[in-house]
Amino acid sequence: MLVVQKFGGSSVANAERVRNVASIIADTYRAGNDVVVVVSAQGDTTDDLIEKAAEINPRASKRELDMLMTAGEQMSASLLAMALKAMGLPAISLLGWQIGMQTDSNYGNARIKKIDSERLNMELSRRNIIIVAGFQGINKYDDITTLGRGGSDTTAVAIAATLKADLCQIFTDVDGVYTADPRKVTGAKKLDVITYDEMLELATLGAQVLHNRSVEMAKKYNVNMEVCSSLERVPGTKVKEVATTMEKMLIRGVAKDNNVARVTIVGIADVPGMAYKIFSVLSQAKINVDIILQSIGRDGSKDIVFTVSADQKDEVVEALKDVECLQSALEVNVDTDVTKLSIVGAGMESHPGVASQMFEALFSNNINIQMIATSEIKISVLIDKKDADRAVQAVHDIFFDK
Amino acid sequence: MLVVQKFGGSSVANAERVRNVASIIADTYRAGNDVVVVVSAQGDTTDDLIEKAAEINPRASKRELDMLMTAGEQMSASLLAMALKAMGLPAISLLGWQIGMQTDSNYGNARIKKIDSERLNMELSRRNIIIVAGFQGINKYDDITTLGRGGSDTTAVAIAATLKADLCQIFTDVDGVYTADPRKVTGAKKLDVITYDEMLELATLGAQVLHNRSVEMAKKYNVNMEVCSSLERVPGTKVKEVATTMEKMLIRGVAKDNNVARVTIVGIADVPGMAYKIFSVLSQAKINVDIILQSIGRDGSKDIVFTVSADQKDEVVEALKDVECLQSALEVNVDTDVTKLSIVGAGMESHPGVASQMFEALFSNNINIQMIATSEIKISVLIDKKDADRAVQAVHDIFFDK
Repeated sequence: MLVVQKFGGSSVANAERVRNVASIIADTYRAGNDVVVVVSAQGDTTDDLIEKAAEINPRASKRELDMLMTAGEQMSASLLAMALKAMGLPAISLLGWQIGMQTDSNYGNARIKKIDSERLNMELSRRNIIIVAGFQGINKYDDITTLGRGGSDTTAVAIAATLKADLCQIFTDVDGVYTADPRKVTGAKKLDVITYDEMLELATLGAQVLHNRSVEMAKKYNVNMEVCSSLERVPGTKVKEVATTMEKMLIRGVAKDNNVARVTIVGIADVPGMAYKIFSVLSQAKINVDIILQSIGRDGSKDIVFTVSADQKDEVVEALKDVECLQSALEVNVDTDVTKLSIVGAGMESHPGVASQMFEALFSNNINIQMIATSEIKISVLIDKKDADRAVQAVHDIFFDK
Repeated sequence: MLVVQKFGGSSVANAERVRNVASIIADTYRAGNDVVVVVSAQGDTTDDLIEKAAEINPRASKRELDMLMTAGEQMSASLLAMALKAMGLPAISLLGWQIGMQTDSNYGNARIKKIDSERLNMELSRRNIIIVAGFQGINKYDDITTLGRGGSDTTAVAIAATLKADLCQIFTDVDGVYTADPRKVTGAKKLDVITYDEMLELATLGAQVLHNRSVEMAKKYNVNMEVCSSLERVPGTKVKEVATTMEKMLIRGVAKDNNVARVTIVGIADVPGMAYKIFSVLSQAKINVDIILQSIGRDGSKDIVFTVSADQKDEVVEALKDVECLQSALEVNVDTDVTKLSIVGAGMESHPGVASQMFEALFSNNINIQMIATSEIKISVLIDKKDADRAVQAVHDIFFDK
């Protein structure tokens, strides 16, 4: 079996942890598998480098920042190869350019175009364990690029897709994907399996286990992923196209997202094209709008309510000033004391009762619902931030504690 | 003019020093020159990385050590490029593989084979200041190599040779080459100019300013070098084929080397081939023998005395055990309480009185000479270590203080 394993920065933060990671890799290799490992920079290396750059040039070019940052993964990759060799195993570290990790030229947030599998296949044919420096690639000018947030996960999935690996394991400091945040919700259960789409919805909702980009790529190339812990040797959560235990579980998880702002525009003229004008301006300002609610027109005016990421609330207010026809609107309110609570599950599509169960749980706990949005595999509601934790527990109880 | 400038690790040890180096480069560039800069890793970076590796694998492979170490120059190169850009200058950092620095596969101590000048010339034609990560190259497998001691100096000279640069400036923490160690010898003078051969002899003798390999390469490709200080803006010492002020100065410098051991073999059978047998064994053991003295045979036996690097004295004793015909020798002595004192100067060839002047200085200070060796541009004597500093001063006085 060919296995790609990815280890994040905290998993290789010091010599002891590097040795721990090496022992996980060693077990996989000794079980007869071919192994390609993708590794992030050690612990705080990236932050330290950013600080060094800021001291010298607070507005450093992204090209030079990428040159600087990628040294971090170079160091961790070579150290991990050394640790494996100390255990008597054949290992070789390789950088982005050495495995032909071709990207576009968007420094700091580059997209992968292709990987030349030649070097990887040659090293595998020699039964070498390959340690790839994650997060990095090169563009057509042979300059070094980085892949942005979640870049090492994406590196791992891209390599798994290129080599048609049997499994791509993402090791983190949690041991899998849970039905809710296990630190906060009583009775949260680890999932054995989850579909790509469910994982995507949960990642968006702040489950923070996998970055969306890697899951999207895994879905596109049908790469079997597994989220596992680098600290405990227990089975993790598999991420794949079809989750076979689906029938038994209506929903996969309950998640909340506190990074939400609700924007209310009161008293817009009730004429055609208003929504178009507002949302095209926001789109031009690169603001992602999530839930949208429009009141029915009355007395020649209507209200529009929508949610955006709380980080972008000031940009929203700024952008709305450019919408001429809004000058006559009565009021623009921004409220960040809200939370988006969502349940995700591919099973809900065929079970119409799911939404009402969720609403029942909230109602019986006296929690007011401000907005509702649904997709085929997700139901989201906007509630008061102060009710958030209570709401997550109540909704989780109704689906998982019965 | 095309100028190559090399800055060592202490010159870029922190943000302040990086900015200082950037201002030297900026002045050179603003004066209308094309500039290629070669930079070493910051301050203690290399030592820190070696320590990290030792913690994980005390016997790490040289291939992985090279992968680890070269991250150091990558970081300093990008930081220096950022510093120049902060000053509004166009700068770009490039790694060994990006400038096609081809080496052999001798990891940890690789030799340069060639440099592809294409990328360098393209960046120069755009009037970019190029910051090259020193000390590193790639072999024919596209694996990263390092050039060993003095590797960044060698990188600079190799680039200067490839681009036919007008000048290759090596910036260090001293401001040039002196007639003797200025911290120890009263009246030591800075040289304006010195020939490659003189510099080579002085480097061997422990003057430590330039590494021999870079000077040998500069001589081979006729690269004009200059040793200058990164701390003071004063003219340094030029290193070139012919030093035009030669007539005025019989010798260029006085240097001592304390890393010497004198080996004496007493009572060897006085038959042909003995010297051959001894020195071929030493040569096989990769021991460099410096001065050799053989007594005239008497009573069927003779003595052989020679010097080696003190670091290798144990290897010498070990190697001599393999010389069968030495079993009958009376005694093998190793003495490390000796110093080699040398004067260097291309002018001495045509001035037969130089040696006698040196001997006179030592005699009048009551310093005993144990061995003598001469070359066309150098006279070396072996003396007691306790006399070393006094001897350097006395010899320096007779040539420079008259």
